[in-house]
Amino acid sequence: MNWLPAALLTALAAIALADAPIDAARAYRTANGARIVAEYVEFLKIPNVADDLPNIRRCADYIVAELAKRGASAELLTLPDTPPIVFGELKAAGATRTLLIYVHYDGQPVNEPAWRHGPWSPTLYTASMEAGGKPRPLPAAGEAIDPEWRIYARAASDDKAPIPALLAALDALEAAGIPRSVNLKFFFEGEEEAGSPNLKRYLETYRDKLDGDLWLFFDGPSHQTGRPQLVFGVRGVTGLEVTVYGATRSLHSGHYGNFAPVPGQMLAELLASMKDARGRVLIDGFYDSVAPIGEAERAALAALPKVSDALRRELGLTWSEGDNAPYMARMLAPALTVKGLASANVGAKARNVIPNRATASLGVRLVKGNDPERMLDLVEAHIRKQGYHIVRREPDMATRLAHDRIARVERGSGYPAARTAMDLPAARGVIRAARRVDGDALLLVPTLGGSLPIYLFTDFLGMPAIITPIANHDNNQHAPNENLRLGNLWRAIDLYAALLTMD
Amino acid sequence: MNWLPAALLTALAAIALADAPIDAARAYRTANGARIVAEYVEFLKIPNVADDLPNIRRCADYIVAELAKRGASAELLTLPDTPPIVFGELKAAGATRTLLIYVHYDGQPVNEPAWRHGPWSPTLYTASMEAGGKPRPLPAAGEAIDPEWRIYARAASDDKAPIPALLAALDALEAAGIPRSVNLKFFFEGEEEAGSPNLKRYLETYRDKLDGDLWLFFDGPSHQTGRPQLVFGVRGVTGLEVTVYGATRSLHSGHYGNFAPVPGQMLAELLASMKDARGRVLIDGFYDSVAPIGEAERAALAALPKVSDALRRELGLTWSEGDNAPYMARMLAPALTVKGLASANVGAKARNVIPNRATASLGVRLVKGNDPERMLDLVEAHIRKQGYHIVRREPDMATRLAHDRIARVERGSGYPAARTAMDLPAARGVIRAARRVDGDALLLVPTLGGSLPIYLFTDFLGMPAIITPIANHDNNQHAPNENLRLGNLWRAIDLYAALLTMD
Repeated sequence: MNWLPAALLTALAAIALADAPIDAARAYRTANGARIVAEYVEFLKIPNVADDLPNIRRCADYIVAELAKRGASAELLTLPDTPPIVFGELKAAGATRTLLIYVHYDGQPVNEPAWRHGPWSPTLYTASMEAGGKPRPLPAAGEAIDPEWRIYARAASDDKAPIPALLAALDALEAAGIPRSVNLKFFFEGEEEAGSPNLKRYLETYRDKLDGDLWLFFDGPSHQTGRPQLVFGVRGVTGLEVTVYGATRSLHSGHYGNFAPVPGQMLAELLASMKDARGRVLIDGFYDSVAPIGEAERAALAALPKVSDALRRELGLTWSEGDNAPYMARMLAPALTVKGLASANVGAKARNVIPNRATASLGVRLVKGNDPERMLDLVEAHIRKQGYHIVRREPDMATRLAHDRIARVERGSGYPAARTAMDLPAARGVIRAARRVDGDALLLVPTLGGSLPIYLFTDFLGMPAIITPIANHDNNQHAPNENLRLGNLWRAIDLYAALLTMD
Repeated sequence: MNWLPAALLTALAAIALADAPIDAARAYRTANGARIVAEYVEFLKIPNVADDLPNIRRCADYIVAELAKRGASAELLTLPDTPPIVFGELKAAGATRTLLIYVHYDGQPVNEPAWRHGPWSPTLYTASMEAGGKPRPLPAAGEAIDPEWRIYARAASDDKAPIPALLAALDALEAAGIPRSVNLKFFFEGEEEAGSPNLKRYLETYRDKLDGDLWLFFDGPSHQTGRPQLVFGVRGVTGLEVTVYGATRSLHSGHYGNFAPVPGQMLAELLASMKDARGRVLIDGFYDSVAPIGEAERAALAALPKVSDALRRELGLTWSEGDNAPYMARMLAPALTVKGLASANVGAKARNVIPNRATASLGVRLVKGNDPERMLDLVEAHIRKQGYHIVRREPDMATRLAHDRIARVERGSGYPAARTAMDLPAARGVIRAARRVDGDALLLVPTLGGSLPIYLFTDFLGMPAIITPIANHDNNQHAPNENLRLGNLWRAIDLYAALLTMD
């Protein structure tokens, strides 16, 4: 879904006023484009799947060396048998604020045969494969670089790309003699695509190093329309599994049909009671703890492109939950989703039975203000209100004979949403910096629908956090033939130059 | 579930009045018990799984020979590559009525290692294995036979047992010089346990031979209380599979949760609309075509043992559908059952997705008066009433974009119920005959909950049909260590003697 052609995006970007740091970034990348690309290609050749510890370590060492070249203190924070965190610090004379920059240098695991050139054989293309692009040699020194060129390699976008862009931005400001306005701390994770299993432990262990004023997450793609965006939050996530019971054993549907309770029917009634046909959750209190959005968020929402109609069409849908309310408005509310259903078998394996149980796997997405445990409590209270006795393990005969309706509830683990208010001074500073690059093309997105453990930074470390994506939205994220559009890499250099000199 | 001890059953049976044919049967089996058992044991040694055609043929040949010894015309009705029907005819001087007797001489497939003595190594026990019975030699000539002895072998009960009993009843009447009051036709099937795949074809092919007045099904066990029963019907069966659709593909539950319709939720709402929490089907017209029961059935129902409480307790249930109405009353109504549910995965395989579909396998049990196709029409009409557009194959994009809700319905094949009215003269004759043996212990059951294609006999051939079970209810039907209690074999001889001389 690319509503705006790239040429128009470039034109929109050019509307921004002349600006010394951005001018410096542009001059630097124009003069050094071939070298920036060549160096990035070398970095992309190092495999970076989180469980490949020797190569992960090569990636980390490369980054440490590059940071050190720019005068940063740089080191590896380690925990046994996990990818290290690349940590670095770079102070700015007279600066009173500290930006903490998050990048993850690991990439998604690969299915090598599905890649046209192999995941770690970076290949430059004249355009995207889908648009008929062809492989071409790396640019020669001084050769003009087409912003439509793409580098194909694992993690080219997600999430090695910010590293060459950040290094180039530092070099550009240095070359132009423009001082940074903020101190920097670098925190580059090596196992985000493995689910960040040690992130919390790293933050706890190295918390003393991580004071500062604002986290910036250099990760993620542009808006689905292709326009640049800043993202101020993510939803949290939790879930539960509910099993309802019939007889102690599966029964012959002839001998017992019309007599024995039918678990699939009971589960259907229970699920139907949780949500109405328009997608409104009917569980008492489900929407009560949602933190209200402010004026700035309301204005940002109003300015977002109207994507819902196109999205529905693409997905083969005539309607969406919440009376076709705009997509982003729906992401600002908690969601209850039937992720899976099971009771005996369907299709060729279906038998003439009344199954003895039926199970639903329910997902709950959380927004700012929702406590994961409290939300599961509300779901459980609703289940009880429907007449169910809740158990935590298989019910025994005594339990069965003491209760008309029994539901086994297994609560999942989860974590809360995170959202940074757009009118915080730090947030306003980031918005102004990005507008210097993107002008009115910039979109301000209150939250992603998906979940990342950003609460560790906002709630546990207690700092605001903003996601500043740079990758092209059509980067084949998590898929074969992942790629980065060079125009997006160029914008990243400009954006970072603006952020490093933010007012 | 054996509510009445066997001793009491025997006492109840003895209440029956003295009766020449039954006296003849008792005298004959008392004098010839050892030989009857020995001959049955030889018959049980012949394997009889339907797909083992050579052995099936040995069984059929054995029966033909035994019938011929009693003066019956006996032959094999054949269709290529299927077990033959053993057909025979035995006229009675002056008789104007013809009884057609159905038996199936095949047995359930076996899992040999699970059998204590092997399925075709018949072994006499002093009592059931569960009651501590021990193997014992076959009785010597003249030795008194304990009715609690059991023969363990495949098909000992289901359904070879009627054959030696019928032969003995014929011999007993012959020995006592008592004439039969009815002509007999024998129709013994060889693939009932394989689902009777050729039964309809056999009936069509050999219809001309099958005129008569009444079908008797010599098959099945006693009532679950252990009491003797006559069964006047079976439910029919059909079903359908319903799939509801969301987006064209499974979606990330974070990015789309609260926006994209959730098929599991939609299916739950659809199923919940079909039935209320007490088990009443809410589909318009679902109960309208049920044929009413008559006075005789009402009286029979009132006389049935109250089994529902004990049944619920055994199954770990505090309630049953229809406000705890008696079990048998519930079998006289059509049933709608969720036999299976599926949407993506639950448990360890559950993923953070909004699945693109959800499927329910629905079973429909039919009672007298319900037409299978018409009942499926009613379910479909209900689905449409809930706003669904029904399709027969995967919906394409144009279909998706033209309809808010799409359900793919796959109609199953099925067949109708069969029920013979208890106040038909033929039915009254059978009841009187059985009461001569069982007295007030006899139960009259309007219908089984399960399904058998008896409609082929009642509707296609157009004759009344009654099931006259003889096996002990705890015979391990369809399971390893199937067995026949000799007291039940003895009652069968008495019962058949009564039926062959019915008034």
